[in-house]
Amino acid sequence: MRWIRYSHAGAVAYGILEGDRIVEVAGDPFGGFEKTGETHALAEVKIEVPVIPPTFYCVGLNYTAHIKEAAAKFGTMPDLPTQPDVGYRSNNALIAHEENVVIPAGATKVQYEGELAVVIGRKAKNLSEAEALSCVLGYSIGNDVSERAWQKSDRTLWRAKNTDTFKPMGPWIETDVDLDALETRVRVNGTETSRFATNSMLFGVEAYISAISRYITLYPGDMIWMGTDGTSPDLRAGDEVEVEISGIGVLRNRFVAPAGNE
Amino acid sequence: MRWIRYSHAGAVAYGILEGDRIVEVAGDPFGGFEKTGETHALAEVKIEVPVIPPTFYCVGLNYTAHIKEAAAKFGTMPDLPTQPDVGYRSNNALIAHEENVVIPAGATKVQYEGELAVVIGRKAKNLSEAEALSCVLGYSIGNDVSERAWQKSDRTLWRAKNTDTFKPMGPWIETDVDLDALETRVRVNGTETSRFATNSMLFGVEAYISAISRYITLYPGDMIWMGTDGTSPDLRAGDEVEVEISGIGVLRNRFVAPAGNE
Repeated sequence: MRWIRYSHAGAVAYGILEGDRIVEVAGDPFGGFEKTGETHALAEVKIEVPVIPPTFYCVGLNYTAHIKEAAAKFGTMPDLPTQPDVGYRSNNALIAHEENVVIPAGATKVQYEGELAVVIGRKAKNLSEAEALSCVLGYSIGNDVSERAWQKSDRTLWRAKNTDTFKPMGPWIETDVDLDALETRVRVNGTETSRFATNSMLFGVEAYISAISRYITLYPGDMIWMGTDGTSPDLRAGDEVEVEISGIGVLRNRFVAPAGNE
Repeated sequence: MRWIRYSHAGAVAYGILEGDRIVEVAGDPFGGFEKTGETHALAEVKIEVPVIPPTFYCVGLNYTAHIKEAAAKFGTMPDLPTQPDVGYRSNNALIAHEENVVIPAGATKVQYEGELAVVIGRKAKNLSEAEALSCVLGYSIGNDVSERAWQKSDRTLWRAKNTDTFKPMGPWIETDVDLDALETRVRVNGTETSRFATNSMLFGVEAYISAISRYITLYPGDMIWMGTDGTSPDLRAGDEVEVEISGIGVLRNRFVAPAGNE
């Protein structure tokens, strides 16, 4: 089942996507819903960010190849995490499928990171790894856009990762997913530039949810982006990036220059 | 003017605190409000966290003495920040004035950090330092409770800073503040353990708001905790910590052991 959040005639709603039709609901997949009887063609609506999370978790280093390549770039030794320490991203940066990533003034090394986005469906504390997936509503796709020069120069990741428009997410939430069957592919202007087995993580979804929930209450709508593998070219204004995860969908965003002299 | 968020007879509301009476409003200080005609005695209500922010910003190293003392403890060289790089905290950890901080199982070095909390009142982007305070609604008090062993051992600050109950905030938001006149005092079980000039920051409120808003849109209800000075003793179950900032108020919380075998 696919949950889509969209706007139509000035109102934002959740719906269930069946083929290319949206069955509108009142309410949402987190607090409860009922069908309104309205339907829309997918092509008639504007797709919105699937959820604005209470807390936006993101895993920084979770695939071996990405860690080794990042270390080589920064001139440091690769340091494989020994436990699942999660980080944070910020809602101001979220944009939807087909919205534009604005490359800010002064940015010199903007890159993509195609990621599996885990959406929490119910309140959870102290889950074991065996119980962990019971709190998951479904999965979406995130592009953890990053400015590598700022990532290296700044003390924290605030602008390197959270500049406005740097967190494309969507196009929807898929609830029926076989994690081991997923493959992530990224294309720039139609040419494939990354491909990896989505679930070949150092610490998987179950391990992260269990570890987080030992200290922290997870709430409906929280999400965890699970990190990326491989590398990205430096992106330029005009580039179109597609992150596809098999069985979920394709997240597509164009990178553009700022308007005026912003 | 003091904005207080409270619950009374099962409902959460904002009110304006006048002496020890609360003048209830419909709405809130961010989106607009009007007085309902209801009033309550402060002693009759439960004080709630003053705001649940869309994004919870927090400055890590912003006072010279704190940076030097932290470096000495961790056996590293003090590294004074050269630009205002902001970090993040997480809403799951917020608790109100007079609620309990639960020291989790396995924690060995839990400490307080008394901080000025800046609450954003209106949407802002690209503010100069001269314009920065125009987007501020007011100021509150935060206790950035930290587990120092986890802060040292983990790759990120997630559980060291964001374990459930680790972010006491309150008791209210004061809109009329002279930043240079503020003094922060922290007491443990009634004995003063820290005192510093609140505004003697490496980078002040104006500098942070201006720097953040160059890349990031600030939204109504966002908040920025401004860091702390000095050091804290290791806290134990039963300790009561009061963070006072002159002209704002006193934030009081007891530290307790987890219930049962949690």
